[in-house]
Amino acid sequence: MITERLATFVAEIDADRIPEATLRMVQLSMLDWAAVGIAGRDEPVARIVRDMALDEGGAAQAHVFGGGVMPARAAALVNGTTSHALDYDDTHFAHIGHPSVAVVSAVLAMAEKLGASGRDMQIATLLGIETSIRVGVWLGRTHYQSGFHQTGTAGAFGAAAACARLLGMGRTDVGAALGLVATRASGLKSQFGTMGKPYNAGIAASNGLEAALLVERGFEPNANGLEAAQGFGDTHAGEGNARALDGLGEVWVFDDISHKFHACCHGLHATLEALAGMNRPPAKDVELVRITTHPRWLGVCNQLSPDTGLGAKFSYRMVTAMALLGHDTAKLSSYSDQLCCDTEVVALRERVLVETDEAISETATRVEIVQKDGTRHIAAHDLDMPIKLKDRETRLKAKAASLVGEGLAAQLWWLIETAAAPVELGQVISTNQT
Amino acid sequence: MITERLATFVAEIDADRIPEATLRMVQLSMLDWAAVGIAGRDEPVARIVRDMALDEGGAAQAHVFGGGVMPARAAALVNGTTSHALDYDDTHFAHIGHPSVAVVSAVLAMAEKLGASGRDMQIATLLGIETSIRVGVWLGRTHYQSGFHQTGTAGAFGAAAACARLLGMGRTDVGAALGLVATRASGLKSQFGTMGKPYNAGIAASNGLEAALLVERGFEPNANGLEAAQGFGDTHAGEGNARALDGLGEVWVFDDISHKFHACCHGLHATLEALAGMNRPPAKDVELVRITTHPRWLGVCNQLSPDTGLGAKFSYRMVTAMALLGHDTAKLSSYSDQLCCDTEVVALRERVLVETDEAISETATRVEIVQKDGTRHIAAHDLDMPIKLKDRETRLKAKAASLVGEGLAAQLWWLIETAAAPVELGQVISTNQT
Repeated sequence: MITERLATFVAEIDADRIPEATLRMVQLSMLDWAAVGIAGRDEPVARIVRDMALDEGGAAQAHVFGGGVMPARAAALVNGTTSHALDYDDTHFAHIGHPSVAVVSAVLAMAEKLGASGRDMQIATLLGIETSIRVGVWLGRTHYQSGFHQTGTAGAFGAAAACARLLGMGRTDVGAALGLVATRASGLKSQFGTMGKPYNAGIAASNGLEAALLVERGFEPNANGLEAAQGFGDTHAGEGNARALDGLGEVWVFDDISHKFHACCHGLHATLEALAGMNRPPAKDVELVRITTHPRWLGVCNQLSPDTGLGAKFSYRMVTAMALLGHDTAKLSSYSDQLCCDTEVVALRERVLVETDEAISETATRVEIVQKDGTRHIAAHDLDMPIKLKDRETRLKAKAASLVGEGLAAQLWWLIETAAAPVELGQVISTNQT
Repeated sequence: MITERLATFVAEIDADRIPEATLRMVQLSMLDWAAVGIAGRDEPVARIVRDMALDEGGAAQAHVFGGGVMPARAAALVNGTTSHALDYDDTHFAHIGHPSVAVVSAVLAMAEKLGASGRDMQIATLLGIETSIRVGVWLGRTHYQSGFHQTGTAGAFGAAAACARLLGMGRTDVGAALGLVATRASGLKSQFGTMGKPYNAGIAASNGLEAALLVERGFEPNANGLEAAQGFGDTHAGEGNARALDGLGEVWVFDDISHKFHACCHGLHATLEALAGMNRPPAKDVELVRITTHPRWLGVCNQLSPDTGLGAKFSYRMVTAMALLGHDTAKLSSYSDQLCCDTEVVALRERVLVETDEAISETATRVEIVQKDGTRHIAAHDLDMPIKLKDRETRLKAKAASLVGEGLAAQLWWLIETAAAPVELGQVISTNQT
């Protein structure tokens, strides 16, 4: 039932009915995907997966971050892994997953292979992301809390849907692609903190693209692999949320996507946004900072006294001190081992208390700063609050420029905004110059 | 803990301590794998996956059934799928999975790529199969009954172990390959009856080989991905059978592997063996045949009146009638749509009763034939009973000859028995002539 409805949606929606603002958001997510991918191209995990694929060689179907062209299935694996390597890509909190890294990585590879138009690529991206979030919500919190990484699991369904759309499939074949990827989709949260996390995004992209390619060639799977008895949902602690498809095709859950404006764990972003928006005293006047967050984040990003840059990215105390001392939390290089021993930072982070409140939304944080003279400043931020499209665009362009340089960021945006041919975008993301 | 023990076993076992008879069994499983793979090369699922991989092209690292050379990762996918396409390959009942299709497909591809010796390939095959069965037993019946296809899941761990061995990894890296494949392994039983079933074997081979390749290049995953909290076992209904590693390195659970001597569902084989071993009256004298089996098989292979050759492969009544009427149940072509409407067969199958008994072993069947004159013949067979190695060899060689012809079967056996270079075996399995 869910497969049939999603397949009909993906195959048959009238693209002209998609709101302009939603398509603009797709373009912004693609820009963000491209920028974080280029910035991540030299990460060890990106090099390892890319080198394996380059060693295989093969048909020059699609470009990859860091340079090279290869078969689309391999390119999806490489680009999915690379664009998630920095963990700086977009997130959707309805299911808690990173949709673009799985979907855009598959879509660009497939679009290059097929010579699809830039506009079709963008529509496929939207439909794929929408599918992955809807499937993720259907799988639900039980799925996520049991240990599955929605980026890898729901992401594979989104990638399959997007590639099926690019292949021009009717609903039966789109459904078959979704049914087939049900036996292939995987990804565990127990890989978090290792190279396995970005790899989960890569396998999602590659698995989804492979499923679509095989169905295109006549593969006949159990097309209800997602919701069948002992299908993916049943076997992967799926909740079967009956409201997952509410408003499908009318309401775009994609619109609620969150982009990262800080180069750290998304669980810390509401805190940083609250700090940015409040009247902050000079660091020297701060007696105490009290952060109140949902308890689910304690196991994710509450390292108390990290001593590595990576650890800092998962530390409320660290990023709070950084923000109050004026360190740029949007910049990758700010999160250094060195900063973790900076005496000023260390002294300030000791004054940060992290508390929890079950009643607070998972996307929100309250921040209270108590000055030495007793003055209190209170602020709160919820990532779920809409950002004006124009503001989001400004911030994402600035982020892209800071990651890959003004020139390259402008070039990427121009290609995306004008819906240039996928191969042109592919050539630019595979650059080795920034 | 299980990962560490398995990794130590795979990396450090002294190959000279492996019993000769066990290595001979490995050779027989390789022969069987090659013969069923060659026989399956034109199945639609085999063509589809092979054509996708051939379209990708790439480095000529390994041969595939049906012709072609390609990168090892793709060859493993193609050969795993192809050798399971007919469902005529070996089975291990301790975990209920098909170990050779996942492991040998990965091993041959990796061995060709590396230029490994034939002997090292055979040892890696044994260690991989032993690992997959041990992991499968550790995952247990809860895993299988929940809907996971051990051929795909446990098989991926076996393929990873075998490839890691071929790469000469120490135990740390073997463990890392097992840990990495934990986030990639997949395969659902809800694909049974579709092309998705053999595909599960292909993805197991490819996933395992990929994990080993990536670790070789420096990939650092959560090396305890199998048994970590929210690792593969936790998230995939694993039972965590504490006895799974009993006698590891001393007792070879591989030795209990079952080879198929009938081209139908393995659940029917004990029945056919019992029939073959008993004093059977002419079909015309048969009043009634009573088959008594474990109830778990009722949902698997008890189609009452199938009308297709595929259905016949899952029907106690059909294969019993075929055996009593002298149709060769070892031959693929015997299972035809036509035979399902043969009046003699249809009349006889109506006289076959299938009953269940919880107390009977899952690998056993009792058969009772009642003649029209009241005479009764009773026999039983348990697939778990050892077959003499020499008898097994004779039957497997005959099976290979019937599948691919005398000449090719002899050539395959010669290459395997003399531990010829993997590329020589690869060339022969990729033949298009039988």
